Order: sequence, then C-alpha cells, then structure tokens
Amino acid sequence: MILRAIPSACTLLNLAMGMLSIIATINDNYFLAAILILISVFSDGIDGRLARRFDVASDFGKQLDSLADLVSFGVAPALLVYADSLSGYGYIGLLFIVLYTIAGAWRLARFNILNISGYFVGVPITFAGGFTAGLVLLSLKLAAFPPIAFLIITPLLTYLMVSRIKVPKY
Amino acid sequence: MILRAIPSACTLLNLAMGMLSIIATINDNYFLAAILILISVFSDGIDGRLARRFDVASDFGKQLDSLADLVSFGVAPALLVYADSLSGYGYIGLLFIVLYTIAGAWRLARFNILNISGYFVGVPITFAGGFTAGLVLLSLKLAAFPPIAFLIITPLLTYLMVSRIKVPKY
Repeated sequence: MILRAIPSACTLLNLAMGMLSIIATINDNYFLAAILILISVFSDGIDGRLARRFDVASDFGKQLDSLADLVSFGVAPALLVYADSLSGYGYIGLLFIVLYTIAGAWRLARFNILNISGYFVGVPITFAGGFTAGLVLLSLKLAAFPPIAFLIITPLLTYLMVSRIKVPKY
Repeated sequence: MILRAIPSACTLLNLAMGMLSIIATINDNYFLAAILILISVFSDGIDGRLARRFDVASDFGKQLDSLADLVSFGVAPALLVYADSLSGYGYIGLLFIVLYTIAGAWRLARFNILNISGYFVGVPITFAGGFTAGLVLLSLKLAAFPPIAFLIITPLLTYLMVSRIKVPKY
C-alpha cells in the first residue's frame, strides 16, 4: 500500500513545486522559480521509474503525471520566461507563451493516446520546461545572455514539442 | 475535417483564457482574471457538447480537455484567490492553494479512468473554479465580503472535488 503511494506522491510533489514556482514568479523571485522547476524535473524523473520498479504503474498514475507535467513544465516555465523576458515584447511575448503552453498540452494529450514505448514523438515537455528554467538561471547570472534570445528559443521549443521528431528514451 | 477541429479549438481557447487569467493575476488585474476564468467555464461547457453533437468525441479531445481544465479551473483560480486574499495568511494560504490544485488534478485523473456517464463523482473542477472566480468578483465589488471567507471556502472546494459525492450531469 505504501509502495503503491510513493510514485503518486512524487507526482504530487512535482505539481506542488510547479505551483510554488509560479508563486515565486508572481513574487518576482525568478531564481527560486527556476530552481523549483528543476526540482520538478528531478521529481518527474523518479516517479515513473519507481512505479515500474515497484510494479505499481497505473493508468491513474499516468494521468496524474501528465496533469502535473503541464503545470510544472508548461505553465510555470512559460510564466517565468514571460515575467523575466518576454513581457517586454507586448502581445508577441503573450502569444509566444500561450502557444508554448498549448503545444505542451497538445503533446501530452497525444502521448497519452499513442502508447508508444522505446522513444518519444516530439521533444518531451519535461525537457522543454527544464531547458527553459536552466536558460533563465543562466540569463540571471550572465549579463551577456540577452533576454531577446527567448524570442527565438521559446517558439523553437513550441515547435519541437508538437513535431514528429523521434527522441530516444533513456 | 473542420467540424472535427471545432471542439478542440474550444478546448484550446479554454486553455488560452486560463493562461491569460494567470497573466492578469500577475499584473494585479483580479477583475479581468476572474472574468477570463468565467469565459473558460463557458468555453468548456460547449466543447464536449459540440464533440458529441458532431459525433467527433475522441480520446485525444478528452485528454486535451482535462489538461486545459486543470490550468483554467485549478491553477488560475488558485493563483487568483492567493493573490487577492490568501497571500495575507502566510504558509497556510500557500498550503491551501497547493492542496486545491492537487485535489483538482486528482479528480481529473480519477475522472479519466472511471468512464462513468450520467453523473460526476465529486464536485467537478469546472464548478470549483467558476465558483471561486464568481466569489472573487463579488469580493471585489462588495466591501462587505471578507477575504477571510476563502480560508473556509477554498479547503471546502478542495474536499468536495476529491469526495465521492455524486453530482448529477446536466
């Protein structure tokens, strides 16, 4: 019973970190917001592994995982990039982060009905969110990193998520 | 082909309104944030109906709908209530909105694997989110509405979502 609950607990931790990251963004603490997304990446990496290790993988767990992923790697990084950089570009910035989140949801919905194992179709939202959080950290530490870079990187990640590119699983 | 796309377009509109509501909350425009959630309630009410009317209901559409619902009726109302009222209560306020979002995700995951028609198990997240947005509107217009009320209402909605209460479908 306890073993059964551990993977879902990791998923809920992932979701909680996503919510706290958004709150950190609202409070203008972009460093903390990025770190919390990276903790979510770690937490997301272990829940599926634990579920398979304990042989308790379930449809419920898979659904919960996708929902948490959208918040932590779709919504939270989009808001972080918006607050940190893209809000300076008016409606274009707004459009880019809404499209990023839509692409993340689209990819998760497609993943849930495809049931392909062995590789991912399109860049996983976990990668897109973690990569974005890492770049925001870099932009906060390196004055040389121009915020305008997200005008290219965010739409690129948006495209890569909904693309049909095969990405190997590790 | 166009008919097939209309319900998913409504779902994506729902998700976009949820994201714009969060941005409005970040910009301290709580009135707009609440209105955008209520537009999402409307948009969410028609996508499933259109899908069944056009006989294009799909697993993909159902997955996308749940993902959008979590953002528009889980994350957006939680952040709105936090910014408008619960942020004044420190960690308790933070805990309450994280638990609200977790309960919403839990309910959506359970709904997706139960496949019960005719009634809902637990209060739907759309109702919880719409009700919260309506109350925030009321609190903005009526000085008599105390923000402390959300210390009771938010945990109550959290409980009602994960409860086993049967709610009739209309």
